[in-house]
Amino acid sequence: MVYVTRRETFSASHRLYNPSFSDERNREVFDKCANPNGHGHNYVLEVTVAGEPHPSTGYVIDLKLLKRIIRTEVIDKVDHKNLNLDVDFMRDMIPTAENIAVAVWNILESKIPSGKLFLIRLHETENNVVDYRGGK
Amino acid sequence: MVYVTRRETFSASHRLYNPSFSDERNREVFDKCANPNGHGHNYVLEVTVAGEPHPSTGYVIDLKLLKRIIRTEVIDKVDHKNLNLDVDFMRDMIPTAENIAVAVWNILESKIPSGKLFLIRLHETENNVVDYRGGK
Amino acid sequence: MVYVTRRETFSASHRLYNPSFSDERNREVFDKCANPNGHGHNYVLEVTVAGEPHPSTGYVIDLKLLKRIIRTEVIDKVDHKNLNLDVDFMRDMIPTAENIAVAVWNILESKIPSGKLFLIRLHETENNVVDYRGGK
Amino acid sequence: MVYVTRRETFSASHRLYNPSFSDERNREVFDKCANPNGHGHNYVLEVTVAGEPHPSTGYVIDLKLLKRIIRTEVIDKVDHKNLNLDVDFMRDMIPTAENIAVAVWNILESKIPSGKLFLIRLHETENNVVDYRGGK
Amino acid sequence: MVYVTRRETFSASHRLYNPSFSDERNREVFDKCANPNGHGHNYVLEVTVAGEPHPSTGYVIDLKLLKRIIRTEVIDKVDHKNLNLDVDFMRDMIPTAENIAVAVWNILESKIPSGKLFLIRLHETENNVVDYRGGK
Amino acid sequence: MVYVTRRETFSASHRLYNPSFSDERNREVFDKCANPNGHGHNYVLEVTVAGEPHPSTGYVIDLKLLKRIIRTEVIDKVDHKNLNLDVDFMRDMIPTAENIAVAVWNILESKIPSGKLFLIRLHETENNVVDYRGGK
Repeated sequence: MVYVTRRETFSASHRLYNPSFSDERNREVFDKCANPNGHGHNYVLEVTVAGEPHPSTGYVIDLKLLKRIIRTEVIDKVDHKNLNLDVDFMRDMIPTAENIAVAVWNILESKIPSGKLFLIRLHETENNVVDYRGGK
Repeated sequence: MVYVTRRETFSASHRLYNPSFSDERNREVFDKCANPNGHGHNYVLEVTVAGEPHPSTGYVIDLKLLKRIIRTEVIDKVDHKNLNLDVDFMRDMIPTAENIAVAVWNILESKIPSGKLFLIRLHETENNVVDYRGGK
Repeated sequence: MVYVTRRETFSASHRLYNPSFSDERNREVFDKCANPNGHGHNYVLEVTVAGEPHPSTGYVIDLKLLKRIIRTEVIDKVDHKNLNLDVDFMRDMIPTAENIAVAVWNILESKIPSGKLFLIRLHETENNVVDYRGGK
Repeated sequence: MVYVTRRETFSASHRLYNPSFSDERNREVFDKCANPNGHGHNYVLEVTVAGEPHPSTGYVIDLKLLKRIIRTEVIDKVDHKNLNLDVDFMRDMIPTAENIAVAVWNILESKIPSGKLFLIRLHETENNVVDYRGGK
Repeated sequence: MVYVTRRETFSASHRLYNPSFSDERNREVFDKCANPNGHGHNYVLEVTVAGEPHPSTGYVIDLKLLKRIIRTEVIDKVDHKNLNLDVDFMRDMIPTAENIAVAVWNILESKIPSGKLFLIRLHETENNVVDYRGGK
Repeated sequence: MVYVTRRETFSASHRLYNPSFSDERNREVFDKCANPNGHGHNYVLEVTVAGEPHPSTGYVIDLKLLKRIIRTEVIDKVDHKNLNLDVDFMRDMIPTAENIAVAVWNILESKIPSGKLFLIRLHETENNVVDYRGGK
């Protein structure tokens, strides 16, 4: 098994709040992330695929193809968008890094043509990162 | 002259559009940056002060003090905020990196207690950066 | 399971030597790291917690809380300190990156209020890094 | 178990093509990586060794020694070289990042004097990375 | 004046040698950079344009446009290429970072539609960088 | 004129205090940097030389030579050292980043065999940087 990772970036805004919480409770739980007019991040997304290098190409998966899949399926839908209002796959979810990573996994899992999706890593800032490996 | 630089970060959302333009013209000029629901960035702000190191401290300016000034005067006002709606000093300005850098200069110029403000550098993404030196 | 990581930094000095070794043996084993007057590093500490995102918050653990715990329990005790002389939890240990990482795990393991401590990663320089996962 | 990682870099050129493919097929599969005159990268190599810190040194492995082994066995053979033409251990292999990582593992596995080789990570660019753990 | 910078990357191979030198002299002057089969780098190119932000857009120059110009005029001609053999604008030049930076300046200087070209910065490795400001 | 920069790193410890100040005043001015047992940093040193590329080499200065000069004249004297106690050229100076940068300039200015020393940049942490250009 070899693991290949492609890194992509996107810039988006979001607001963390739970509509079933009071404003006070939202502020308590999410603090400045609950600011009503939102804030934003330059997200860094890493997608790792595990597999055996194909003997005739030396590739687990062609990274140019993986890049195209990530851009079409994820980046084009979230880049320069508001994650609460503009993104179908984030509907009815609190757009924490944890929930975004799981949602990206769910989108990409069935789209990898060679090898298997192994890891979604999402950097929200240079200090905050989440990893998801499909529940393992 | 020695130049000392302090680096701080903030996460904010914004939307680029000119209210005197039509929607079509805004989309033409600002493209995806004009998305009505906004998007966001992890901004990296660098503030450079020029001066002579004081003989009894070896400091041009105490960087702990410079950090406190930048946080009080700038970061606390923009971090986890919407630059179009929440920030007094960005009122009636298109919040491009250029305009933010000039606005930060105008705030900090008179607040530096030792040495002189020399450079505001603002990284909007890892690929886009602006510098302002007070018009020079 | 989702894994969330918080990154913090501290600047400290240390000296690597074993008091039961001769000076010559210390110099042989630890080379320039055995310099009697010490040297130092900007350490980068990454703390990873594993858990399920809570349905009402989308958080495995509130990263603002994790940051506060890391700062109170670790950073405040080692930042701008001498690891051989000033740090209770490093007493009678050679302050290698390996030993610091294990010591930080032992401090934090019982302090994580939500999810479980999964990984301590400590960067001593940009080229030298250690990982500890509680002995696994 | 503690895992220690040493990071080294090298600059090399390569060309991706399979001599049993037609030129057209090579261009189709490897695209611009098949450019007949080659191209190149600043590779970043991370080597991770797993083991228990020795009680009298606090080291899993002396990183100065690990650095020397990596430089002698790998870096000196690939740095400022053409991976298709100049490197014995890449003979008859397509020099993809996957194949380089596996080849580096095979060289280093038996050379680690203390602890066990755990991971070879090779960054080909800031966006493309591969990991190899000896087939696991 | 505000200075805006766009960062782009390309991967290329090159060989440093002067055809009027003997092989021995080339090896003496250029050392391992003279390896006959070449080597390569991930170059990072920064292009800075100076100007006044336009009052109706807040832009010195639209960075999406600057990106397109850099990609069309420079990146597409050097990325995944051999700088000695494949690049018209490097003909009959030793492809040192210095010479590449000057050549990129000469190409871009007349292509900037708004503001003036101010700086070409080229990172050859993480440790080696050159700057060119049009001879100033 | 082309400007070439070489980046080197060193790890050192230091303590900021003025022996003519009281302990209380030292703590007031230098805060945690005055900790009696010292602390330390991974310093990043950038040295920039300005000159014209030589027509027969394309080099302002051979960066392998510049690297050797920086290592012999500076790095070997400060790396894994205590800047207050072990470094001749820092005697009787408070080892602030400002003072180190000026001292490094004074050492290197007369040692550059081709081109002229233009800039010393010293990163003390990822957030604190100083520049010195020989008093200009």
